[in-house]
Amino acid sequence: MTQRYKLVLEYDGTGLVGWQRQDNGPSVQAALEAAIGAFTGEAVTAVAAGRTDAGVHACAQVAHVDLARDWPADTVRDAVNAHLRPRPIAVLAATAVGPDFHARLSAIERCYCYRIVCRRSPLALDRGRAWHVPVALDGDAMAGAARALVGRHDFTSFRAAECQAPSPVKTLDALEVNAAGDEIAIMARARSFLHSQVRIMVGTLKAVGEGRLSAADMPSILAARDRAAAGVTAPPDGLYLVAVRYP
Amino acid sequence: MTQRYKLVLEYDGTGLVGWQRQDNGPSVQAALEAAIGAFTGEAVTAVAAGRTDAGVHACAQVAHVDLARDWPADTVRDAVNAHLRPRPIAVLAATAVGPDFHARLSAIERCYCYRIVCRRSPLALDRGRAWHVPVALDGDAMAGAARALVGRHDFTSFRAAECQAPSPVKTLDALEVNAAGDEIAIMARARSFLHSQVRIMVGTLKAVGEGRLSAADMPSILAARDRAAAGVTAPPDGLYLVAVRYP
Repeated sequence: MTQRYKLVLEYDGTGLVGWQRQDNGPSVQAALEAAIGAFTGEAVTAVAAGRTDAGVHACAQVAHVDLARDWPADTVRDAVNAHLRPRPIAVLAATAVGPDFHARLSAIERCYCYRIVCRRSPLALDRGRAWHVPVALDGDAMAGAARALVGRHDFTSFRAAECQAPSPVKTLDALEVNAAGDEIAIMARARSFLHSQVRIMVGTLKAVGEGRLSAADMPSILAARDRAAAGVTAPPDGLYLVAVRYP
Repeated sequence: MTQRYKLVLEYDGTGLVGWQRQDNGPSVQAALEAAIGAFTGEAVTAVAAGRTDAGVHACAQVAHVDLARDWPADTVRDAVNAHLRPRPIAVLAATAVGPDFHARLSAIERCYCYRIVCRRSPLALDRGRAWHVPVALDGDAMAGAARALVGRHDFTSFRAAECQAPSPVKTLDALEVNAAGDEIAIMARARSFLHSQVRIMVGTLKAVGEGRLSAADMPSILAARDRAAAGVTAPPDGLYLVAVRYP
């Protein structure tokens, strides 16, 4: 009998190769599994709601692990945090859950936020934490184009070549653009996303903000079903996995 | 005839020894002077409004430099930024000013913000950007104690041993505590501060938030004129120089 734990994780993706364990650098998964191993002596496999890419941050990634013993959940949180130091990865909460809970398969909604800072000068405090765009962007035009992408569509144009999803058809529940001062925050919400979908949508909205595309172009970009029809893939720096929802 | 420029600077103080040039590590002053040297070939001395300590951040530090040639101010900004890369230091604005402008002596007000995050788990995204306090603090009690420090006082109890100010008497114009979620932000505003004054006030307010001191203790702490009467010096991580005002 093992006990399954749901873990809510915060991390600074700068310098990490992303969630998934890889040979070429430190991953959140490997750090978390090593910390759990140092705590319980077990070799566990951690499963996450979303495989964030290199450089992408999380305010509340969700993962699950199975442990041999029924520890108090707060002990799991504190012990894993102690062994994660000094990495910029923290367990915000641990909860004992039933064996049916699956961090990826049980999730009914993912919410991402993307931060763009528009200013001439380079970013110092927000280095690695936002996309630095040296010109002003038209936030209203971006918001209009974002609305044109909401709904159920074939998102092939917004899909990285390496995407392994069985179908390119996804329902985008929300894509909201909020401008305040020199910062533009884009919130994207869906049951699930294709690989790099949020970053390609953001890169496309940036082209709208620059006046190179408009809301009227969105239907034809979707209809093209061609990655080349959409904008660039926005850098990972500005992307945050902010919430995962379960039934 | 030289031309004086006012520079507004943003920097991430993590890993820096502070504003002032020192032998033991990278400083903002040395980086800025080297960038200007690479741009104009001149050996300049940069003067700042406040000598931020190691690890302290700035959203809008102000400095001045004298250049031999009358460059367009935007050229100064862009060229210095180009030579500052990849350091986490950015010139937000450059302005040509008269020879009477002095970044330190002309300043009539400095404003600092201090961020405390109260939560059990370590900080990941805010590592080095806030003071991590693993327990909840009473924000209302802290706000009350803060009000008791506002005004003209002998701040000897809130002064680091190495402080070189001629007088310990300062007028604290504002000290405001704002709590939102698990974050407490403390804003301090004065014409000038003693060395470490803001960090010692914050450390004292934290003791109030924990219930170890109260607003009623503030007058006796001031009257003691003894550093030992006040609280700990808060770590530099949470401190930001946010504004410097000139006539």
